[in-house]
Amino acid sequence: MHIMVTNDDGIHAPGILALAAALAELGTVTVVAPDRERSAAGHSLTLHAPLRVFELRAGWYAVDGTPTDCVNMGIHSLLPRKPDLVVSGINHGANLGDDVTYSGTVAAAMEANLMGIPAIAASLATFERHGHFDVAARAVVRIARQVLANGLPSDTFLNVNVPDCPEAELQPPLITRQGTRSFVGTIIDKTDPRGRKYYWIGSAEPEFNDAEGTDFHALNRKHVSITPLHLDLTNYESMRVLAGWQL
Amino acid sequence: MHIMVTNDDGIHAPGILALAAALAELGTVTVVAPDRERSAAGHSLTLHAPLRVFELRAGWYAVDGTPTDCVNMGIHSLLPRKPDLVVSGINHGANLGDDVTYSGTVAAAMEANLMGIPAIAASLATFERHGHFDVAARAVVRIARQVLANGLPSDTFLNVNVPDCPEAELQPPLITRQGTRSFVGTIIDKTDPRGRKYYWIGSAEPEFNDAEGTDFHALNRKHVSITPLHLDLTNYESMRVLAGWQL
Repeated sequence: MHIMVTNDDGIHAPGILALAAALAELGTVTVVAPDRERSAAGHSLTLHAPLRVFELRAGWYAVDGTPTDCVNMGIHSLLPRKPDLVVSGINHGANLGDDVTYSGTVAAAMEANLMGIPAIAASLATFERHGHFDVAARAVVRIARQVLANGLPSDTFLNVNVPDCPEAELQPPLITRQGTRSFVGTIIDKTDPRGRKYYWIGSAEPEFNDAEGTDFHALNRKHVSITPLHLDLTNYESMRVLAGWQL
Repeated sequence: MHIMVTNDDGIHAPGILALAAALAELGTVTVVAPDRERSAAGHSLTLHAPLRVFELRAGWYAVDGTPTDCVNMGIHSLLPRKPDLVVSGINHGANLGDDVTYSGTVAAAMEANLMGIPAIAASLATFERHGHFDVAARAVVRIARQVLANGLPSDTFLNVNVPDCPEAELQPPLITRQGTRSFVGTIIDKTDPRGRKYYWIGSAEPEFNDAEGTDFHALNRKHVSITPLHLDLTNYESMRVLAGWQL
């Protein structure tokens, strides 16, 4: 098996080191990841600038682009052949609910899915420097093993979130749906040393609706959350409503 | 009515000028848009750097960030009150099928939807310099009028694509679902004047599957395509499949 690993926290982040090490038991691992943190990059592609690649050591490539760029570079250029699986993470912080659309970690898995490659996005629910990345990596390996054995349903990639706790406290994985959050947004404005205003997008801790069956609900109870995602954003119910409009 | 307008082609693009002018017949328009082209920005937020705002003229603000940043700046800081509608575009080039997840134009509408504000992303299906942006703008105004009159179903924003043709050739709007494309990706590698390699993500024209009921199918037959989108990426069918896994 050949597995490509990427992330959005950058190639030196603890999550990607733990993930690549753990996945080595399933096959050959090639890492193609951003050279620095690219959180909240969303599904963004670098179209108007060239990309540079730095081979840090055998099988470890840093790219000066987004996670989506990394998947493109890996699949279309750096890897000797199409990988059997792409795993993105382990992200420092959960990727839940509506927020998955901002996530570079999830976008990388989305990109692999668009290329027809099974893909998993994995995140650890902590912002602490020293989270249980090793526990999360083992949980992801168990899921990856199932993906390699069973394949994924068509038009599906997985968004996995792991609670930050010792292995003994970890509850069994649950298949969940994407939750929603109550929007909390702020802008902080300040004045620079030259008297000009600047603005910073605030980052109040998002509050998720604790509805049963959601990613947040599972994670909050120390379950590993596995949400099957796809790229179809169509709201089919609304199609019926809009069909009644006078257009 | 107060309408906020943004885009991802930048505040000087012909599409946003046509859109803002046409929407003025529905109410007060405030423009908050990127200071330069930010295509393929996806749903990306600038979290690790400050943002600057430049008021070019009354009601026209340029921001050195992404379309998603612009919506945040507009709603949380620049506009006197929450707008009744956010319209993003008119994008230079269609936003169809799976590709909507890359689109900064669509992401801006997504962000407004997260804030509970009715939102429309609008695109003109051409890469020609002189497209029929005025025709498209009038089509968007007709849709915006319906949105302001009826509201949108909950958890819904609209992705509108307009064919590039004279008004007389335009077919009536159709409510569509998001289509899919056959993936075409390439990496072009070259050598710089100092002998170092660099890479460029290729941009072969994407090929969409011409399935009936899709955005692409409608647009291809000169209909205005209106796709209701939401932020829920869950693949509900796959949940049932995965529930059978040994995890």
